[in-house]
Amino acid sequence: MTQATGAEVLWTALAEQGVDTCFANPGTTELDLVRGLESKGDIRCVIGLQENVCTGAADGYGRMTGRPAATLLHLGPGFANGIANLHNARRARTPIVNIIGDHTSWHLPFDAPLSSDIEALAGAVSGWVHRIGGTGAVAGAAREAVRQSLADGGQGATLIFPADFQADAVADAGERAQAPAAAPAAEAAFDPARIAQRLRSVRRVVFLLGGGGEDSGLGARAQRAVARICEVLGASAYAETFPSRAERGQGLPAFDRLPYFPEPARAVLDEADLVVLAGALPPITYFGYVGHPSELVDPARLLVVGEPGRPVAQRLEQIAEQLGAPEAQDYVRELPPAPEGELTPARIGAVLARELPEHAIVSVEGGTCGYPFYAVSAAARPHTTLTNTGGAIGQGLPVAVGAAIACPGRRVVGLLSDGSTQYTIQALWTMAHEQLDVVVLIAANHQYAILRNELRRNGAALGARAAEMTALDRPKIDWVGLAQSYGVPASRAATAGELRDQLRRAFAARGPALIEMAL
Amino acid sequence: MTQATGAEVLWTALAEQGVDTCFANPGTTELDLVRGLESKGDIRCVIGLQENVCTGAADGYGRMTGRPAATLLHLGPGFANGIANLHNARRARTPIVNIIGDHTSWHLPFDAPLSSDIEALAGAVSGWVHRIGGTGAVAGAAREAVRQSLADGGQGATLIFPADFQADAVADAGERAQAPAAAPAAEAAFDPARIAQRLRSVRRVVFLLGGGGEDSGLGARAQRAVARICEVLGASAYAETFPSRAERGQGLPAFDRLPYFPEPARAVLDEADLVVLAGALPPITYFGYVGHPSELVDPARLLVVGEPGRPVAQRLEQIAEQLGAPEAQDYVRELPPAPEGELTPARIGAVLARELPEHAIVSVEGGTCGYPFYAVSAAARPHTTLTNTGGAIGQGLPVAVGAAIACPGRRVVGLLSDGSTQYTIQALWTMAHEQLDVVVLIAANHQYAILRNELRRNGAALGARAAEMTALDRPKIDWVGLAQSYGVPASRAATAGELRDQLRRAFAARGPALIEMAL
Repeated sequence: MTQATGAEVLWTALAEQGVDTCFANPGTTELDLVRGLESKGDIRCVIGLQENVCTGAADGYGRMTGRPAATLLHLGPGFANGIANLHNARRARTPIVNIIGDHTSWHLPFDAPLSSDIEALAGAVSGWVHRIGGTGAVAGAAREAVRQSLADGGQGATLIFPADFQADAVADAGERAQAPAAAPAAEAAFDPARIAQRLRSVRRVVFLLGGGGEDSGLGARAQRAVARICEVLGASAYAETFPSRAERGQGLPAFDRLPYFPEPARAVLDEADLVVLAGALPPITYFGYVGHPSELVDPARLLVVGEPGRPVAQRLEQIAEQLGAPEAQDYVRELPPAPEGELTPARIGAVLARELPEHAIVSVEGGTCGYPFYAVSAAARPHTTLTNTGGAIGQGLPVAVGAAIACPGRRVVGLLSDGSTQYTIQALWTMAHEQLDVVVLIAANHQYAILRNELRRNGAALGARAAEMTALDRPKIDWVGLAQSYGVPASRAATAGELRDQLRRAFAARGPALIEMAL
Repeated sequence: MTQATGAEVLWTALAEQGVDTCFANPGTTELDLVRGLESKGDIRCVIGLQENVCTGAADGYGRMTGRPAATLLHLGPGFANGIANLHNARRARTPIVNIIGDHTSWHLPFDAPLSSDIEALAGAVSGWVHRIGGTGAVAGAAREAVRQSLADGGQGATLIFPADFQADAVADAGERAQAPAAAPAAEAAFDPARIAQRLRSVRRVVFLLGGGGEDSGLGARAQRAVARICEVLGASAYAETFPSRAERGQGLPAFDRLPYFPEPARAVLDEADLVVLAGALPPITYFGYVGHPSELVDPARLLVVGEPGRPVAQRLEQIAEQLGAPEAQDYVRELPPAPEGELTPARIGAVLARELPEHAIVSVEGGTCGYPFYAVSAAARPHTTLTNTGGAIGQGLPVAVGAAIACPGRRVVGLLSDGSTQYTIQALWTMAHEQLDVVVLIAANHQYAILRNELRRNGAALGARAAEMTALDRPKIDWVGLAQSYGVPASRAATAGELRDQLRRAFAARGPALIEMAL
């Protein structure tokens, strides 16, 4: 018989205390809790498409039964989406046990993208907040959470449950006590000659470019300068994984993004003698992964030529001059051939790269089409991409709205997935109301594919319960009808040819349009 | 020439600093800021239907322009709905100026329903948080907010702006420094004889009943006991304005709810020699209204027979016995006659009261139909109502989901308005997914009517900008298509007869249904 995981111990203890329902919107840091439910048929899980659905449903449940339901929410941002209805529940004195997954405990010091002050957010709507300090403390914490939820006439009791304590015992606890190294200081007085000398003194150099405005590491000037430097040094360069804003397309170098998962990211970074940060933060893993350090590059191998959010283009040009780099090329590439047949993520990427108007702005959210588009978009007409910087889901549509308001002369494309788009679906109305020139592309695979990918990492099988909890296919949302109900003209594309024709029509017209891409 | 209001000073200062766009989802405590925009044509306001739309749009705007847009958000819960995308914006180093209206400053000590720890919520996603301390401090705070939003490479700068400092100078500043009185202590040892004596010693007694479980002040037992007491004393009784859960209908006394606005509430309470709290909190005004005290009853006139969230039915029965009250009646009432003709809120209330199945649960949100239904629902079959306790919008659909999960044998009705329902529209999918027996009634007037009512209070005219910012009619959302796109069967009713027929069909079938009620 195998030992129970912390997650299984939690569910067992909650069920013993009478908790039989969980309103859930889990994310990556709650996946061991999802796994733990496989063996807990006595706890019913109800998926909500936004956290406020979960917390409000738990409120209604608690009012009618006098017993706490559990909520299962994703880190601080997921919890924040549910704060409004927890506020209502607090006023109703409804007992609720909130379970918030947190980063693996040893990952916390590194301020990963999804980190936030969960205690502050939870404290605003909870009578009791407790952080689980280890697997041995899980059962007692669960019992106390139920007791606290019923105290004082009923209240929110919130458990913060780091991901490592959800999983089975980690092999070597000693390895976890990893302290964050001090961030390397930027060159106080920028000295291109000294930097050029340092760059020449090592064999393998990798540049990491951070996004932002025109003078950022992912503006056109900086990218051209870095390409010159790479040519003279035989170095390579990557964009940070989720830039706030990046220039891309014909005429620019085709830098890849630093891979998201630690294995391919380390394949890039481990061999570097020097990693040069041009507006990018020192690279860390997105979540804490056992067997990988949170800090992907030790500080001794880092060189900062520009802090994030500050201009760096001119500095890079000065370095290029110092190195005697050749003049910037005008990078010309062949567009991918016109794809045919049923839609796949790769074909979607190719069609969009071919059809994208010059100076378009592409708001990217969702794993399904983001990378396949990026793989070919260097050959597209010059454009700007905006990605999800903080990992809080539901950014794609609203960012497209804001970009269209900011740049009325530019075409905006939302390259989105169906799961993430639901979190802020109401943005479609604003697009119709303001008649914004936004073309929304929805990759409709009717599942939380990113979570399934995470669940399947390292060859793991997808449990039936996990599959059920990551399925969005009963019923399948009719995206065409949904968009039309908000006043956005919509159509459905099943083949590359249909997508091409519908994209052309959408780009030729004014106002918003939505295309459901059947996958 | 009239003096500028604090709100106008804020917009002027922001515009002078280059802020030309505001993504807004205002509520009652931001209405003076809405009014202040009437004269500020240089600031474009874009309405989002959920706060995360606003904050994400401001993120996209700031990324593309390098300048902060403003957001306009409603108190702590409204801000919380936007936290997730402010988290993303923080990671993107996007400059944003958040403006959060807060309660009138002198109302803050009273912990009104919508009060929360705004500083804690804002601090989690802002580099700078500042509370405006008076009208004289507005312009400087606005300038500093823009400066701070651009500091450190770009960040969120959050201004908390109490409603009284938004408005023009209040007549007598001295009147505002009103300290909260200490809450009266509950009877430590419950002594029904002493309470009966006190009740007999005064002329006018008003009971305030608090909602909750079966033994709460709004359970069936407590209501019957209070009716007996009222009969013997010639007293009157009211439900608290927004109970978490209340029993209602045939067989029970027909207690009104304490009115929402201060004038009619005071008409009830001012004349009472003694206000008896049975599970209700001491009554305060919902917002701070100039000319009305926040505390509606001075503590000397309060008598607590049961704290909120604790059983009170037995105590009330003991008091009734002590008073020699007559036996409880079985209250039988005539249903309202079947209405005919085009739908109005009153006709909707009458149709629903006539058709409501026994033991139905009615989740009420939105001002349009809530009161008209309540006015006739004492004659409906016995049912339970759930109301919005904390004022955070978007509770109606999720609470209906939770109630249906909790009570699978009971019919659930969502009596909702179109504005508030949009905040958590995704709940329709969960209803279809779980095939919940929920009938959703949408009062579709295509406006934020409650805000217009607040704007029009005391005979004020509705400004063109305010009308625009409270309009939801371009385009009108197609609620039938929207529901169907989520897999919920839907229909549209324009007359009382159509509503009756569609309600009967919905109650006869299993699974969810939505009826758009044209107003």
